[in-house]
Amino acid sequence: MDTRDRQKRMRKASPVAPVGMAMPSWPQRVSFCVPGMVADGNGGCVSALCAARTHPLVDQASNEKLAKYERMVQERFDDIVPTLKRISALQHETDFETRAQQIARERLGFELPAAVLADAWVTTLDMRRLYGTSVLRTFLELARETCTQTCDSDAEVEAMTRFFIECGFHEVDVSACADGRLKGLLQYILRLPQQAVPRHKSYAGTLFDVELNVKQWAETELHRFREGLPTLPDSGTRYLKIAVYHFSSSDPLHEGCAAHGSNDREAAQAALDRLHAFSTAIENGFCCGASVATLLIGVDTDNDAIRVHIPDALGDMSLDCYVDNIALYQATAECAQSDALWRLGATVEEAAQQHGRSTPETGMRRLIERLLTHNLSQIDYVCTNHQGRYADIGHAERFISIGDGFDKVHLRNLAYIGHMHTVEEGAADLDVGIKIFTRLNVARGLPVPIAIHYRYDGQVPGSRGRTVTRCRRVKAAIEARYPDLMRAGWLVCGMTVQAKKPGSELETVADNDMDRHGH
Amino acid sequence: MDTRDRQKRMRKASPVAPVGMAMPSWPQRVSFCVPGMVADGNGGCVSALCAARTHPLVDQASNEKLAKYERMVQERFDDIVPTLKRISALQHETDFETRAQQIARERLGFELPAAVLADAWVTTLDMRRLYGTSVLRTFLELARETCTQTCDSDAEVEAMTRFFIECGFHEVDVSACADGRLKGLLQYILRLPQQAVPRHKSYAGTLFDVELNVKQWAETELHRFREGLPTLPDSGTRYLKIAVYHFSSSDPLHEGCAAHGSNDREAAQAALDRLHAFSTAIENGFCCGASVATLLIGVDTDNDAIRVHIPDALGDMSLDCYVDNIALYQATAECAQSDALWRLGATVEEAAQQHGRSTPETGMRRLIERLLTHNLSQIDYVCTNHQGRYADIGHAERFISIGDGFDKVHLRNLAYIGHMHTVEEGAADLDVGIKIFTRLNVARGLPVPIAIHYRYDGQVPGSRGRTVTRCRRVKAAIEARYPDLMRAGWLVCGMTVQAKKPGSELETVADNDMDRHGH
Repeated sequence: MDTRDRQKRMRKASPVAPVGMAMPSWPQRVSFCVPGMVADGNGGCVSALCAARTHPLVDQASNEKLAKYERMVQERFDDIVPTLKRISALQHETDFETRAQQIARERLGFELPAAVLADAWVTTLDMRRLYGTSVLRTFLELARETCTQTCDSDAEVEAMTRFFIECGFHEVDVSACADGRLKGLLQYILRLPQQAVPRHKSYAGTLFDVELNVKQWAETELHRFREGLPTLPDSGTRYLKIAVYHFSSSDPLHEGCAAHGSNDREAAQAALDRLHAFSTAIENGFCCGASVATLLIGVDTDNDAIRVHIPDALGDMSLDCYVDNIALYQATAECAQSDALWRLGATVEEAAQQHGRSTPETGMRRLIERLLTHNLSQIDYVCTNHQGRYADIGHAERFISIGDGFDKVHLRNLAYIGHMHTVEEGAADLDVGIKIFTRLNVARGLPVPIAIHYRYDGQVPGSRGRTVTRCRRVKAAIEARYPDLMRAGWLVCGMTVQAKKPGSELETVADNDMDRHGH
Repeated sequence: MDTRDRQKRMRKASPVAPVGMAMPSWPQRVSFCVPGMVADGNGGCVSALCAARTHPLVDQASNEKLAKYERMVQERFDDIVPTLKRISALQHETDFETRAQQIARERLGFELPAAVLADAWVTTLDMRRLYGTSVLRTFLELARETCTQTCDSDAEVEAMTRFFIECGFHEVDVSACADGRLKGLLQYILRLPQQAVPRHKSYAGTLFDVELNVKQWAETELHRFREGLPTLPDSGTRYLKIAVYHFSSSDPLHEGCAAHGSNDREAAQAALDRLHAFSTAIENGFCCGASVATLLIGVDTDNDAIRVHIPDALGDMSLDCYVDNIALYQATAECAQSDALWRLGATVEEAAQQHGRSTPETGMRRLIERLLTHNLSQIDYVCTNHQGRYADIGHAERFISIGDGFDKVHLRNLAYIGHMHTVEEGAADLDVGIKIFTRLNVARGLPVPIAIHYRYDGQVPGSRGRTVTRCRRVKAAIEARYPDLMRAGWLVCGMTVQAKKPGSELETVADNDMDRHGH
């Protein structure tokens, strides 16, 4: 276990001034840090919640790998504006197109749309279009690169799937809020290999689709009965549904979940209600003791710390009975590893007892302890790499992701996610996304990049074609919904489809006419 | 078995002039009937396809019950215009509101919206609104009445379900075209108790949703594994998917399926392709010999005669190999009952042999024979009650039905059906409906009544509320799509929801504000 003193941790932290303050030119003192942050003795501030040394249970190798990946991704997006600025400065020179493409290739790794460059002489370079397509293209390139940095090995996936089954869960299905700050939920916050959690979708306010989820559950169960996979039907394992809401500890009234008016309790209750509806639907709709397990988790989007609501022996949860992982982190950061493990092993029972409730089944308890451990690494990660509190505690997404969501390139605040099949149903979610990007981008003269993405089943004849049609229909509906933005070039949409098979590539969809059936 | 000579059949036929001709005042002769129709010797015309006597296999009691029901329903709708005309004539009299309601109660069986009557003095009576609400209300009243005339008894449902299982099919699922002329498919054309076919939905051009259907199949199969219902998983029975397309024998190029440009072959091929996609999806997506049975049926909407495409021993079908039931009807109408049965029993094999194909499994063959028999009654019904060819060979729907479709009041041309979850996906279907009604109604000064209807699962918490929200969202989307019609009062929408449980009532939904979650 790597240990370091606070001094060392603080030197690693990048010297970013607290939000809303210019970098002071005199030596820093405690009083210059925003509330909740303290001087790190090295000219910067760090969250008062961070321990002075690395937590004994941290997976250091994984933290380093993830930090490297985060830096790489952020740099790739950060390169876009300076590159386009440089190209813009050349637009009236004679060999503009050639030089522009050369710069783009060198600095961004891809060429810009030739037509946009060729048209520059008529009026001026369409920078909105170039910016929008560059953001979407950067994402595509990242998604296509062999994922040596973050992809989980088959062995890791298999080990985690086996662990879930040992805990009594043959499938783990996670629904989170669409908020971009949860975009790193699996890879960073919970440290779960994505392929071990095949169903993970985002819905504004964690309001997942109960009826659809029942159908998905039925498919999983049918596979067990027909094929004995992933477990035999009489193995006693269950389908586990996890719902994830979020809140902001440093600015709870503004930076919490917008779908619930930044009201933590309301956000948590709404997610709990959906879990209850889901399990009731299955108990009522299928006989003979059909049941699922459920788990409610909250995420503090300031520092990625989770709180896990502890189910009682019957699986019931309450809003008040949870393990707060930041408290566990603080209580165990200075311990020896064995002591930290001992404290971790007692925390679930303590939380239950404190609220006069029974303790969960052994398997559920084991799973919770594992999730808490994983998240300790992430808390430490944020302390090391982001001063224990993200500089962008609010929205700072790069683009809007509409549709089925991407299974590649996961990172906090990478994208605002609107999981929807139609704009008609998802209009409220989409409006929020546009509102966020009007502030983030349009106000700065940049357009809103929208990545429309749907997945098809290669085993179903015609599925790809229908999915392409859906992409185009949704694009048309988005463009129809914001005619003013559209006219002024503030919306740049890209479309991709992808087979459902794990590891399949993103395929870009062209802007052709819809080949839909008229009546 | 009731037998009658042609003279008697023709007397029963109502004296409607051939389409496009005024009622002649001199004695009729053969030459005054349109092609395909012949003089009935009694001043009218009758299809040349109709036999002179009642077919020996006809279910006479059922035909009489259905005819009575059809007349009753048509009269109820036909009463609306004269009643409103009479009320309109009174609108400037002093006790107008009281007298209007009295007339409405007496002649329509319900009161008109009081606010519309009360506002009449300001300008003039809003007849569009009154007509639209009266059509929707008439339908509601019909749906709510105890269905003594057409509802199938539990015994009939059970017998048919048992027959399906004996044929090797534990569930029969029917997808037809949304065309209103197929609205009587189960009750009239195929004579199947509706509850024996729990899944029966309509899609423009029979282009049913393959992916959704796979999920529904999985639910059915899971019930078999978990509960042994309707059959045990090892019973060897299969899920049967029937797709129904349609065509018009007397005007094939204009009155066929609009979704396929009135091209019979294209309509049939499209339905066959979907069946193939559905079975392939299941074979590929689930191991161990998962498979379903499929059947393709065409309906001649002029006379309700079906053609059943004959699967070979492996279940494959071709567009050309089918039993044409109008031919069977003609070949057997003059036979004794036993001879007719013998011919029926040979027809499937003959069709297969004629095309050099193997014959279907015994169960499938038995089912086809049953469907052909049922449809012989309907062919005879159309001969007796509609001169063997409907006067309205084209569209003559009373209203547009949007959403999940009604399980009550089934009748040819009662409603144009758009099965959709969102207007965004169903826009093309909806546009066709509006186009049809612009011709049928708006051209005559009448508005387009639209019944929006969705079903909820009473066993799923929150399902009713979400379904009500969907009703309102779809209504708003419809109104937004046709702003000109809306402004002028040409659209009158009504909303209902209904629990999925068989026998549950229609519940009207008020026009309140949407209680959707903002983000």
